[in-house]
Amino acid sequence: MSLSFTEKWNQATRRNNSLVCVGLDADPAQLPASVRAKADPVLYFNQQIIDVTCDLVCCYKPNFAFYSALGADGFATLKRTLDHIPADIPVLIDAKVGDIGNVAAQYARAFYELLGGDALTVTPYMGADCVAPFTAYKDRTTFLVCLTSNRGADDFQKDPLGDRPLYEQVVAKARAWNAANNIGLVVGATQPAGLARVRALAPDMPLLIPGIGAQSGDIAAAVKNGCDSRGAGILINSSRGILYASPGSDFAAAARQATLALRDAINAHRP
Amino acid sequence: MSLSFTEKWNQATRRNNSLVCVGLDADPAQLPASVRAKADPVLYFNQQIIDVTCDLVCCYKPNFAFYSALGADGFATLKRTLDHIPADIPVLIDAKVGDIGNVAAQYARAFYELLGGDALTVTPYMGADCVAPFTAYKDRTTFLVCLTSNRGADDFQKDPLGDRPLYEQVVAKARAWNAANNIGLVVGATQPAGLARVRALAPDMPLLIPGIGAQSGDIAAAVKNGCDSRGAGILINSSRGILYASPGSDFAAAARQATLALRDAINAHRP
Repeated sequence: MSLSFTEKWNQATRRNNSLVCVGLDADPAQLPASVRAKADPVLYFNQQIIDVTCDLVCCYKPNFAFYSALGADGFATLKRTLDHIPADIPVLIDAKVGDIGNVAAQYARAFYELLGGDALTVTPYMGADCVAPFTAYKDRTTFLVCLTSNRGADDFQKDPLGDRPLYEQVVAKARAWNAANNIGLVVGATQPAGLARVRALAPDMPLLIPGIGAQSGDIAAAVKNGCDSRGAGILINSSRGILYASPGSDFAAAARQATLALRDAINAHRP
Repeated sequence: MSLSFTEKWNQATRRNNSLVCVGLDADPAQLPASVRAKADPVLYFNQQIIDVTCDLVCCYKPNFAFYSALGADGFATLKRTLDHIPADIPVLIDAKVGDIGNVAAQYARAFYELLGGDALTVTPYMGADCVAPFTAYKDRTTFLVCLTSNRGADDFQKDPLGDRPLYEQVVAKARAWNAANNIGLVVGATQPAGLARVRALAPDMPLLIPGIGAQSGDIAAAVKNGCDSRGAGILINSSRGILYASPGSDFAAAARQATLALRDAINAHRP
């Protein structure tokens, strides 16, 4: 019997003593020359990255955009990448989809069935009936976009919706929709106060935290404000900081070093 | 020199005297048996639908979810479908993507460059920097999700954000971001009052209006409340009502009849 996202993730977190999620977001233009010469450069690159990091992470997170941009071969490259990930490390597919029920069911089929993702990011702003087709997969975890790491988070997410900011309304709905206990939230590391607020409102929900590294979020604050009462419950994502730790043919060794350094920097702040 | 979305769309609207957009959202499980026997059932079905409707529509709108759900062949099926659409009918790819800048750039590459879409739906709630990579393609039109046709529109979109509902805030931002005059809005036909309000706030923006047919939106109200001062400026989408007009081998003739009937029903209400 296969494990749920929650089980796989908790086990990987403990086994690897790690809150690190590696974002598998390879841009072909940024790969080392030695990799670009391969038949499927992104697949080869991903396999190397996975091989040198799989004892150091709690999750992998491919962003679907990077595979869409590969054109007709992208889906197969993503599938083969996921096939290479050890079965005891969960996969969170980052696609931020959100659409009406019959459309959402098609995305659920693509990401949860065909690709076999353990978790998925979903944009919740179209409401309950657009989220339900994903949470219907009870053993998967659906992460709702809540408070993002970019500057544009100010445009809508932090404005007051009724008597609280929109992102807090997302937390409230996420709790209301969480009958199967399989909803998580996406909160950027660049939002330390918002992160603390979300954790206070949702003490037990898994939080996916992007925004460290290239986006300059603060690791100490992310850990301090994001962790649950067990000193865990978060996935701190790094993509570019690990994938491109070295531009040369030593990229894999450099990626391992960067992952190790990130894991230890995070763990230094865990309670 | 190729035409912009706006030019193609205005010309097709006039040439075909039509505000109808056909949603190319074929679900393999719902195709007639005669079609399911083909090598690429969805491609064959789409080609038949396009052949019998291309003199009756102003746009085609494939929803990316349905092609993702085809797995490794989906992207190629979508590309071949788009290649079959006459060059003088624009293509609006419905993907409702929304992510940070470097990710959005990958989606723009997939949908605007590799697939050659003339327009795209984008989820705006992550803010300005997540929309800008799409509007940077000045000859394409980026349609922002504003007020959707489903019940879940009540969960966030209609709640007051500051002194106005969230969907009105989306209209205000869309206007502010519209320097290149290439932003449109998605407003469901099931929201007649909201549609009138959006049109009042954005007199000249193209409005994509889903939600008639299977979702029971009112055509008369959609036309009356949605049209601009020229009696045009809207795309009324129908997917299931046209694709599945007949479950049998006469699906194409039935689809043509349904498209013709919808075009005429819409035109009867144009000022």
